[in-house]
Order: sequence, then C-alpha cells, then structure tokens
Amino acid sequence: MEFKVNSKELEKLLSKIIPAVPTRTPMPVLENFLFEIKDGLLTIYATDLEISLKSSLKIVSEENTKILLPAKLLYDVIKSLSDTTIRFDIQSSGKVILITDQGKYNLSYLDEAEFPEIPDFPNTTSSEELNEITINGSDLRFAFEKTAFAMSKEEMRPAMMGTLFQFTEEGLRFVTTDGHRLANLLNKNIKLDVESQYVLPERAVSVLLKILDEKDVKIYLSKSHMSFKLNEFELISRLIKQKYPDYSSVIPLENEFDLEVETKDLHSVIKRMMLFSTSNTRRVKFSIKENNLEISAEDLDLGASGTENLICKYKGDALEIGFNSAYVNDVLSHLASEKKIVFKLHSATKAVIILPTEAKENYELMMLLMPVRLNN
Amino acid sequence: MEFKVNSKELEKLLSKIIPAVPTRTPMPVLENFLFEIKDGLLTIYATDLEISLKSSLKIVSEENTKILLPAKLLYDVIKSLSDTTIRFDIQSSGKVILITDQGKYNLSYLDEAEFPEIPDFPNTTSSEELNEITINGSDLRFAFEKTAFAMSKEEMRPAMMGTLFQFTEEGLRFVTTDGHRLANLLNKNIKLDVESQYVLPERAVSVLLKILDEKDVKIYLSKSHMSFKLNEFELISRLIKQKYPDYSSVIPLENEFDLEVETKDLHSVIKRMMLFSTSNTRRVKFSIKENNLEISAEDLDLGASGTENLICKYKGDALEIGFNSAYVNDVLSHLASEKKIVFKLHSATKAVIILPTEAKENYELMMLLMPVRLNN
Repeated sequence: MEFKVNSKELEKLLSKIIPAVPTRTPMPVLENFLFEIKDGLLTIYATDLEISLKSSLKIVSEENTKILLPAKLLYDVIKSLSDTTIRFDIQSSGKVILITDQGKYNLSYLDEAEFPEIPDFPNTTSSEELNEITINGSDLRFAFEKTAFAMSKEEMRPAMMGTLFQFTEEGLRFVTTDGHRLANLLNKNIKLDVESQYVLPERAVSVLLKILDEKDVKIYLSKSHMSFKLNEFELISRLIKQKYPDYSSVIPLENEFDLEVETKDLHSVIKRMMLFSTSNTRRVKFSIKENNLEISAEDLDLGASGTENLICKYKGDALEIGFNSAYVNDVLSHLASEKKIVFKLHSATKAVIILPTEAKENYELMMLLMPVRLNN
Repeated sequence: MEFKVNSKELEKLLSKIIPAVPTRTPMPVLENFLFEIKDGLLTIYATDLEISLKSSLKIVSEENTKILLPAKLLYDVIKSLSDTTIRFDIQSSGKVILITDQGKYNLSYLDEAEFPEIPDFPNTTSSEELNEITINGSDLRFAFEKTAFAMSKEEMRPAMMGTLFQFTEEGLRFVTTDGHRLANLLNKNIKLDVESQYVLPERAVSVLLKILDEKDVKIYLSKSHMSFKLNEFELISRLIKQKYPDYSSVIPLENEFDLEVETKDLHSVIKRMMLFSTSNTRRVKFSIKENNLEISAEDLDLGASGTENLICKYKGDALEIGFNSAYVNDVLSHLASEKKIVFKLHSATKAVIILPTEAKENYELMMLLMPVRLNN
C-alpha cells in the first residue's frame, strides 16, 4: 500500500512529536514512531511509557495500516528534504520506500504489535473521577517557565520530581521544590469546584514547554493521568502517585524584615560572586544593615574572594545570612522581568521569601530560599 | 604597588590572549597570565610551550613588576564588570586586590619565576636564517579557512598535524593532508627569493583564526620558529621539525574525466546520504555516466538506504567510485562559496581532484580525495 504527504507538513508534525521519543532507553522499540493510517488520516504516536504524544495529518491513502518507523532517522531524512511530495510505498517485506522527485530512501519498519499500548485517556475513565479545565497555552507556559527550575532531580523523593497542580479556592497553584528552594505561582483565573491536587512529572513539563503556543489547552485530570489537548496535538502523561509534601509548613508567615533591591543590579552582583563561590557549598554571604547590602564570597582553595556593596531599602535588624549562589542566581533569572523584588527575612537560619514588588494581575508569584550556614 | 586600567580595554586584550592558555595541562603554571609592568606599559603573555601570545596596553603606574595571575578567573571577573576603572593593588603578601567603584576582588598571584621563558624571537635569531613576509590578515585567514580542516589528528605522523607553508616560484602554497584528503591553496602574491618550507602546528592555526582581522600581518620565519605580528599582538610558534611528506607524488596529473556539478545541489544530496552512510566506512557511492550522477549509500545494520540522481556535465567513461561521505561533506563545505566545481577522475581506485570552475584572482585552490573501495 502507499500514501502521499507533503515533506514540510510532515516535518512540522514530526518536530512536535519527536520530543516524546526517549533518547536512551532499555526498550529500543520506543525509539520508533507509530504511524497509524486510517480513512485518510495519518496519526503519529511516540511514547516513553511515562508520557505519550500524538498528532494527525490528512493524507492521500486508499488503505489502512499501522507500522513502526525509526524516529530519528525518519525525522532527519524528512528534515533534509526540500518542499516536495513524498510517496511512502509500504512493502510487505518490512521495507518502506520513500519516493520523491529526486531520490528514493529505503527504511525498515517494525510490526506495530511490538509497540506498547497508548492509554486511551480520558475516554475509558469514569466521569466521576474526571476533572476538566481550559487554560491558555501562554498562561500554562508562563507557569512552567516560572516554576520548572525548582523541581528536584533526586530520585529519593519522587513526588518532588514533578510540578504540583494544586486547585484551591483562590485558584490553581503551580508548586515546585527540591527542599532547598521553592517556587509557587498562583493563577487566580483557573478554578475547580473541588480542592484537589496532581503531580505532573518533569518530562511532561519539559515536552509541553517545546510544543505550547498561544492557543487554548484543554486539560483532563484523573487520579492516574493528565491529558493536554492543544490544536492537533494530544499529550497524555501518567501522574506521580506519591503524595506531594506539605510545602506550606516550610513557608514562614512572619518574616518581618523587608529588603528591597533592583533585580538587575543584584543579579549582576550575584553573577560575579558565583566566580568566587566555587567550593562545595557555593556560599554567598549577604550582610544587611540599614539601606546597605554587602554581598561577599570566598574561595579558600583558590585564595580568591569578592565583596560588593549595593544600595537597597532596609529598615530591619542588621543581619548576616548565607545562600547557595547558584540557587540565588536561579531565582533571580526567573524574576528577571520584575524591576524590583523584596526579600522577606527573619534570621540567618530561617527560610527567606522572595516576591516581586508589583504583582501581575490575577497572579501571585512567590519564591523561597533556604539559607546555608555561615561558619564564622 | 598599584596600577589602573579600564575594564573594557583590559577585557578586549585578555579575550585575544586567552586562546593561548591551555585548558588541560600537566603544568598548572601555564593556566596563568604573565603580567609585566614596565615604564607605564602592561604586557600580558600566555603560553602552552608550543605557542605564546603577547600584547600590550598603556596604563597608569609608577613602578615596574611581573606577576602571574590565574587566567580564567581573572578573565571571567573582568568580563563580568561594567565599563569602569579598575585599580590593581599588588600586595607583597601574594595577594592582588582589584578595586572598582562597586566592589573589591582578591586574587592570589604567583611569582613570575615559575613561568617558562618566552622565546625572544626573532630578535635573537641570526639574520642569515631569518625570512620575512607581509600578508594581509584576511588573506591569511582565507588560506587557513580553506585548508585547516584537512590537517591530520594522528600523532603517528607529526608533520601532517600542521599546515605546510611552501614558498615556490609561483607563490606561497598552504598545504594540509591527513592521507585521506588534501587541501592546497596557492597565493600567487606572496613570494620569497628562496624556495623553502615550514610546518606550522595546528594550535597556532586555530589561535590565529581567532585573532586575525583585515590588517596586515608581518611574519618572521626561521628553521625553528615563526612569529606573527598583527597590530598590538604577537604570536610566536615553534615549528614542527619533521619533514613534510612529498605530497606532490600523490596528486594525479592525468585524470582525464571531468564531472561538473553545482556545488550546492551536490552538497544537499551528500548531507542526506550521510544519514544512510553511518557504518564504519561511511561510504557513499558515485555512479557516473553521461550527464547523470547517481549517488547512493546504505546502512546494512539499520536496513536503510538512499539513492538520488543529479544532473551533471560528464562525457567520460561510465564509472563507479566510493568515498567517505564525511570527507566529501568537508570538501564541499570548504567549497561552498563556489557555484560550480569539477571532479577530475580516472578510475575507482585513483585519487580524485576537485577544483572550482572559476579560479579566484591570484589564487589556485585544489582539493584531493582518496576513494574508498566498493565491495561489489
């Protein structure tokens, strides 16, 4: 049998599906795309067992079939072709021949039976346990961009390796933490009737960041799966089943000292201090007194150190507090669009809250940093 | 003692000197800059023992000294500063303090006696064995850009790990080869009275490619060293002492069949064929007959293959010849500015010459490719 498709349309589709193909996997069959041709529609699937992606394209075809094609090789070949019609000639011998005006390319295909089953979600889910929201693609992207950096990479606590979707009376909170820092974005526009929470794995977040655009996304949520429908794409992800830790218990409510700084100025100081905070703890010290912030770092091995002073607004008690400079840098990078920020402090050993001075309408963004010990 | 320098001027200078600092070396002292301050002139040196680079900058200083400063840390700190005056306060304790409006940065310095001696070339060279040429920086860059790719990486034959400067009656030839391919560029404008040859190591070529601009370069040549003076920079390189192989013996003079193709068209075919020529030999096959070139490649492991046809001008005997596709790609990348090229062929086992159809004025460029065996 055969079908025809335009090279550039197919390239665009494959470019959006290939992020779901695992690059290193103990199951080589996952390095394939599943091509399903049914009634003039080509649907392409990829999965790494945790997430699956699919999308469809209308094609010219008389027959129906399913085959597995090597994802990377196929994508590289399609990408390298100019704008042309490709005829896929699927032969019963396990070969498929791609024919264009210029050339012929032979690939081997595998039987679709070897491919894992793609969950048919939410279709087979009972409506009682299914929730549904619609969110604009840009808003979802914004939430992931502000919070994804703080997800944990430690396999010891699986729940923290994902992003918490927490539906509350105030709206939808996106929360990430690795125990050293925490990011918490509230979108007040998105609400569910019931309070509930879901933990989306890191890989789903990073793949979504590659395919989200400004169009609306429909999200279906169950206890085991979440699906994202956007335009012609559908991403289905398993959820992390472990309970998300009670992060609210680490958020201090009574940090009474406010340190206000220009984000850009502080960020450029921190970037220089990172050059000197190269030892294990990567420690940078904030020495804060009335309207003056002194920032310093020292590398004992290199015998090198740096100290800078920054004008700030501060009326609280004089205070010395240490941070991991890389974590401060991460937080500031994700607040770069905010002109001014406030560090809410209490003491050298208590968690610090960092907030933009001007909240974006319908949003609340909060970052939290744990201090590191100062040994002097 | 102390001296003052503008941060941006120092950054510009360090950015040009740092390519000579080795990144991995069994001699950690080479990871430093030598700062020499003499009569209001700061001269900065770096060396990896094979090449050395130096440049100077006028500064404000009352005293003279020499110290060694950690190259990467210093460069990173200077790069991160805004446009400002830096005061270097060199203390007798082995510390230097960099002071700006905003902050203070302490670095440790080493005694200059630990640094290897920089060859004083050509000053201490007898004039009998010294030659001298002037070449425009863009012309020297052009020569390296066209030929550097074919230098060998095999330590077995040290001479081939450099670029041959061969002064002939016709002009200066730049020659590189690794035994599989050869690049040969003749610059007819540059001549010496005597025929002579020099082999410049790869590292000197790659560092020069980072600092050459359109200004004239003065080159001094002796049996052991070559130096390049450009603007405020001076690069001195040891030469490779092994004799360069007699490459002219492998250049076939009587390849009678001319295959003329559009460079861009052939290059895009080769890029696709590289996707299929992924086995050890990376073989691509050219099947040539009157005015038609069929190009094919096959990966037996993947069970994948590709075939394309390209219109060409060819009047010779029908011929099948194999090449390493990565080497063909390299040659075509370095001929990308040429609209049309000619492959001069004789048989499936004889070296092939590749020439642009239109020579650039005062230049002759030739590439050579060894074929690989076809096993059918």
